[in-house]
Amino acid sequence: LPSDRLFGPSLTTDDMAAAVSDTAWLAAMLRFEAALATVQGRQGLISGDAVAGIVAACNPARFDVTALGHEAVASASPVVPLVAALRKAVGQEVAPSVHRDATSQDVIDSAMMLISRDGIDILLADLAALAAECANLAERHRDTPIAGRTLLQIALPTTFGCKAAIWLEGILDARRGLAGFRRDRLAVQLGGPVGTFSGSELVADLAQELDLAQPDLPWQAARNRVAELAAMLAITAGAAAKIALDVALLAQSEVAEVVVAAPGHSSSMPHKRNPAQAIEARAAFALATAQAGVLLGAMAGEHERAAGAWQSEWPALTELFRVTAGAVARTLEMLTGLQVDAVRMRANLGPAQIAPDTGGAAALVDRAIGIYRKEMDQ
Amino acid sequence: LPSDRLFGPSLTTDDMAAAVSDTAWLAAMLRFEAALATVQGRQGLISGDAVAGIVAACNPARFDVTALGHEAVASASPVVPLVAALRKAVGQEVAPSVHRDATSQDVIDSAMMLISRDGIDILLADLAALAAECANLAERHRDTPIAGRTLLQIALPTTFGCKAAIWLEGILDARRGLAGFRRDRLAVQLGGPVGTFSGSELVADLAQELDLAQPDLPWQAARNRVAELAAMLAITAGAAAKIALDVALLAQSEVAEVVVAAPGHSSSMPHKRNPAQAIEARAAFALATAQAGVLLGAMAGEHERAAGAWQSEWPALTELFRVTAGAVARTLEMLTGLQVDAVRMRANLGPAQIAPDTGGAAALVDRAIGIYRKEMDQ
Amino acid sequence: LPSDRLFGPSLTTDDMAAAVSDTAWLAAMLRFEAALATVQGRQGLISGDAVAGIVAACNPARFDVTALGHEAVASASPVVPLVAALRKAVGQEVAPSVHRDATSQDVIDSAMMLISRDGIDILLADLAALAAECANLAERHRDTPIAGRTLLQIALPTTFGCKAAIWLEGILDARRGLAGFRRDRLAVQLGGPVGTFSGSELVADLAQELDLAQPDLPWQAARNRVAELAAMLAITAGAAAKIALDVALLAQSEVAEVVVAAPGHSSSMPHKRNPAQAIEARAAFALATAQAGVLLGAMAGEHERAAGAWQSEWPALTELFRVTAGAVARTLEMLTGLQVDAVRMRANLGPAQIAPDTGGAAALVDRAIGIYRKEMDQ
Amino acid sequence: LPSDRLFGPSLTTDDMAAAVSDTAWLAAMLRFEAALATVQGRQGLISGDAVAGIVAACNPARFDVTALGHEAVASASPVVPLVAALRKAVGQEVAPSVHRDATSQDVIDSAMMLISRDGIDILLADLAALAAECANLAERHRDTPIAGRTLLQIALPTTFGCKAAIWLEGILDARRGLAGFRRDRLAVQLGGPVGTFSGSELVADLAQELDLAQPDLPWQAARNRVAELAAMLAITAGAAAKIALDVALLAQSEVAEVVVAAPGHSSSMPHKRNPAQAIEARAAFALATAQAGVLLGAMAGEHERAAGAWQSEWPALTELFRVTAGAVARTLEMLTGLQVDAVRMRANLGPAQIAPDTGGAAALVDRAIGIYRKEMDQ
Repeated sequence: LPSDRLFGPSLTTDDMAAAVSDTAWLAAMLRFEAALATVQGRQGLISGDAVAGIVAACNPARFDVTALGHEAVASASPVVPLVAALRKAVGQEVAPSVHRDATSQDVIDSAMMLISRDGIDILLADLAALAAECANLAERHRDTPIAGRTLLQIALPTTFGCKAAIWLEGILDARRGLAGFRRDRLAVQLGGPVGTFSGSELVADLAQELDLAQPDLPWQAARNRVAELAAMLAITAGAAAKIALDVALLAQSEVAEVVVAAPGHSSSMPHKRNPAQAIEARAAFALATAQAGVLLGAMAGEHERAAGAWQSEWPALTELFRVTAGAVARTLEMLTGLQVDAVRMRANLGPAQIAPDTGGAAALVDRAIGIYRKEMDQ
Repeated sequence: LPSDRLFGPSLTTDDMAAAVSDTAWLAAMLRFEAALATVQGRQGLISGDAVAGIVAACNPARFDVTALGHEAVASASPVVPLVAALRKAVGQEVAPSVHRDATSQDVIDSAMMLISRDGIDILLADLAALAAECANLAERHRDTPIAGRTLLQIALPTTFGCKAAIWLEGILDARRGLAGFRRDRLAVQLGGPVGTFSGSELVADLAQELDLAQPDLPWQAARNRVAELAAMLAITAGAAAKIALDVALLAQSEVAEVVVAAPGHSSSMPHKRNPAQAIEARAAFALATAQAGVLLGAMAGEHERAAGAWQSEWPALTELFRVTAGAVARTLEMLTGLQVDAVRMRANLGPAQIAPDTGGAAALVDRAIGIYRKEMDQ
Repeated sequence: LPSDRLFGPSLTTDDMAAAVSDTAWLAAMLRFEAALATVQGRQGLISGDAVAGIVAACNPARFDVTALGHEAVASASPVVPLVAALRKAVGQEVAPSVHRDATSQDVIDSAMMLISRDGIDILLADLAALAAECANLAERHRDTPIAGRTLLQIALPTTFGCKAAIWLEGILDARRGLAGFRRDRLAVQLGGPVGTFSGSELVADLAQELDLAQPDLPWQAARNRVAELAAMLAITAGAAAKIALDVALLAQSEVAEVVVAAPGHSSSMPHKRNPAQAIEARAAFALATAQAGVLLGAMAGEHERAAGAWQSEWPALTELFRVTAGAVARTLEMLTGLQVDAVRMRANLGPAQIAPDTGGAAALVDRAIGIYRKEMDQ
Repeated sequence: LPSDRLFGPSLTTDDMAAAVSDTAWLAAMLRFEAALATVQGRQGLISGDAVAGIVAACNPARFDVTALGHEAVASASPVVPLVAALRKAVGQEVAPSVHRDATSQDVIDSAMMLISRDGIDILLADLAALAAECANLAERHRDTPIAGRTLLQIALPTTFGCKAAIWLEGILDARRGLAGFRRDRLAVQLGGPVGTFSGSELVADLAQELDLAQPDLPWQAARNRVAELAAMLAITAGAAAKIALDVALLAQSEVAEVVVAAPGHSSSMPHKRNPAQAIEARAAFALATAQAGVLLGAMAGEHERAAGAWQSEWPALTELFRVTAGAVARTLEMLTGLQVDAVRMRANLGPAQIAPDTGGAAALVDRAIGIYRKEMDQ
């Protein structure tokens, strides 16, 4: 995004921005080419010299990502100029051994999985931290009465800990989805020009080399896994944005039950204590659902390689990782050091008829914490 | 019903339309109330007479769904008038035992899961039929050369069977997702007014009575499972629409490699053989992704019951089931009896340099069929 | 929608549901066929007897919309069975004069414009009523101090009248868009089978007969106007939903500055006063943006008639009209009789440093009211 | 910049990337601050020295956009650090005159309009070039028979010129929308902290200084104009993507009626001539509709400044401009030098019964060209 320097930092994290950066994509594509050569060398398909030459050449620092991006316009694929550059780099003799059996989509799809693994790992860590923060609030405020609010009206009491326990549940659930995807669904792609490559030994070796799963079939024309990943990322952002919304509402001046530790300031009103991180998490979620929509829509692609849908996946998935990380990170920052005003919470309960009997809420907290502990121990 | 009679039949199936109909929703809500009374009776929380009265009254035929819908406007919930009508039906004495411990959302969310189970079951059956059709084509045309096409250009040969095997993979993958959801994620909801109900014995009994899972925690404010379901439905529609797009492209007059068994006719051009079902499946998918977007966006709801997001889930999920069924059913009809012109496929291969060496494609077919058989045996 | 009876009434109005109903679509399609025959008769292209026969037969009551909908599945078009039924109805001699020069898309697209005109007219009236309510609040509360809130924090004072004036501006703006569309963009479609019909005299006559504009060119393959209409409808729903959100926030128990005249009740908590209409308007808006997305996406259709995109327009536009009407109507009901607590508004202003100096706000009210009066006088 | 260097160039143009870049946003925000000081000086509200100091300091080169972006995270607004930096730059004495009467949103919203003007100007020029290319094809191929295709089946003949004339109409229509928006709707924003600033003389002067319109009311809480702009941009991208889809279909190996002048190459299949630009335009359109959805959804913001929705507008609109430019530019490049095979077009007409009688098509071309000429003369 051109607005990456100005608006970007609010909507992502530096770690994620790096993990899905152009440079990271380039590195992942080169890693694929190097791994392919490596396993082909091991199987005697290309010479040891070719392997050595290719592996040495697959150094991201040798390539100009900006130039590659501009050259990509001509073929609607960054792999075309990349392979050309790589062939040039290895010299005329080794050139035919570069990118052997592979097609553009093999490179990009496999790189997408490598990028995704790194992106998921960042999210898993950030979600663990966010879950810890939720668990912490849930335990500390297990018995702190707060008005339960339905349809934006005070209903009956719950506890702030129970609210946090439900947040925790949403975060853990999202995390399970991403962890499951990472475990089962990150598969190498090696289908060749039209997805008919069936050399399962080579695919298996390549998968192992890249630490990816071996797919049942080449998946260049069956995009389920990309759509699933998109859904899980949007769900992750949604679980975070739900917390952000609740906190923004609780932090309203008239409610005043929480204050974020590092409120945002105003350019014109010095007294304001804006829940800046909540706002950013919500904006990130709005962007996340939009990108997920692109990726769901991209499932219906033409024949053996889609003419538009596939190409929309690359920036959409990249951006989706970025804003999902932003939603999670801002929500984590928002909860960290959150000032909870238990007195105010009790005062807001209002009329006598909603006198706090919060045993059920506390029991739910215990249950949630039990699940959390068990899950984190694994 | 606006557009349901005129445009609806093209975009859904009668089975699914019935499974997610207003009447089905009503029946599911009443089933929840009856089950709740039953288990509460079993636990001695309400009297046997009350149970009998409530169960007898929970007969959908006794209620006017149109009237309920209009009365629902006043409270943004059909449960408010439904519970009032149910209380009236059981008489003054039993009335207090109706809907005990429950809130509107418990009724609707649990009903949503019951509706979803029925909807998923229809889809699982239709997907099995669609998978069978794909497998059939894959096997029959395991060695039938066809041009592999990338970016809408003829690339290198594959086999028509391999195309069908990839379709099969997409369908099986979608089916796995739905089957897994049905197995693990269809959970009862019983949280009470603000989601603090923790009577796990009652929840467990109710879950068993409704043949739903017992959730870790009440999920009224953690909508992950609804969003997941939405994603899986959209992915299912997408896997079907991918096939529909391929067939529509293969059926083009200039390509003419397939003709659908029951082509659509034109109001002005008698010679036309329109791939009507493919068109309908594609339209259904466009609608499906939109509804999935609503459901992903609905994750960020306010506090213990959302003020708008939750209410958007009901029609969105209903419509999503409908159009997903439409996408699958039309694709199945499209493939059933599909006329495959192997001679034309070979002729279209074009230049000599893409002479068919389709061993890899055939091997992939074998692999896909193996997976299919194993999976269907389970 | 199958949920039309149960969930539908909350999300639309009876008027709009009727205006875009299956029956309305059928009537509009028949109106097109009758008008086409009429002008063709006038130009001597078909006989007077044929005209009389066709016009008499184009009576919606004679057709079974459910049957047509089911027959439509075979051809992905309700026009195919409709024309067949119409030809049958007029008898063998007149049959060839039915649907002359026209194609399915001419019928549906022109009917879409007729439907849209009726739908827009309902919205223009409802928007005028909503604007009146906003203007009324703006004037009455021109000088009633209320906290201006930014980022969900109390900022500096404004007046409640100024809030209403900004709402008014959003509504008027949306109304201008729809009125402009109604005036300039509702065009007949008569392009024949592949959109090459250029008989501008016939098109002009037909346009006049149907009180639609004559388009520059047949628009079957240039869907700008449908996408524009979709955008305007979503914007209309958005302008209403913005008001609904503000009212829902002001009606929060802790803010308590407004109470809706007819609050919704709870199935479990008698003390609650839920802003039911605000909730419904917000749900309707979420659905509206999704349908608008379908219609924007449908612009990219194949050649002279799209294979999926066009077909998705019919239910999407129908639903979009419905939910837009729902968003507007619920917002209007919400504002009608809204109880405004000026004392509470002042109390909520909080700290002394935001003492009300609300002259600017009052001046904006005057400006908005001036614009409103001038605009409504036209 | 994630994906901006690698995938970005395919999806935008260098001109547009610059026009909506971080630097452009920074310059626009500074231009607002300088203009505000200038008009306030002219009205005697701040001293001449203050004006001179502020204007001199509003030099984008003096600011570090990366640092501002990172500092923006803390307050969810880049204006907070920008104003702080600007105040520091002008020195203690002039500092209080900086950003007087304004709030963050005034700066960003006005800057958004300045950015949008530049973005629209680029699009208007590119659309004029694209219209010229369409008009050129329409005239040259006014009488070149080609199969009209409906539902992806050959229907009846039209002319290739008529296809191009319809493309032209879509492009002109989109261009009218953008031109009208540029003329009427690009309005300055100066509402102060809560949108109550009513100093219409100052607003009028500021509007003139920035060459923007004076809005009826401050529009910080009525986002119609942003949503409208989003819709028009998506419609523009859609009009281009429709052409791209048609060309991609005509360029299919089996149809072969056109070949793009600069086909893309494959990393594995030297014989391929991929319609790379068409593919890129289609991908750009998919991304455009998603961003438009974000901007439509952002209409429903909280009170006087939204807590998430507004913040999502900045990156969404920026990206929408970028991908719309990409869709238009790639489509233009695709049509430029397009090789049209009239012989093949005639051969593809197929069966005798669709012998070309293309007078209507030619007449439509004449009409379209007449409109085009008249419009471009203005």
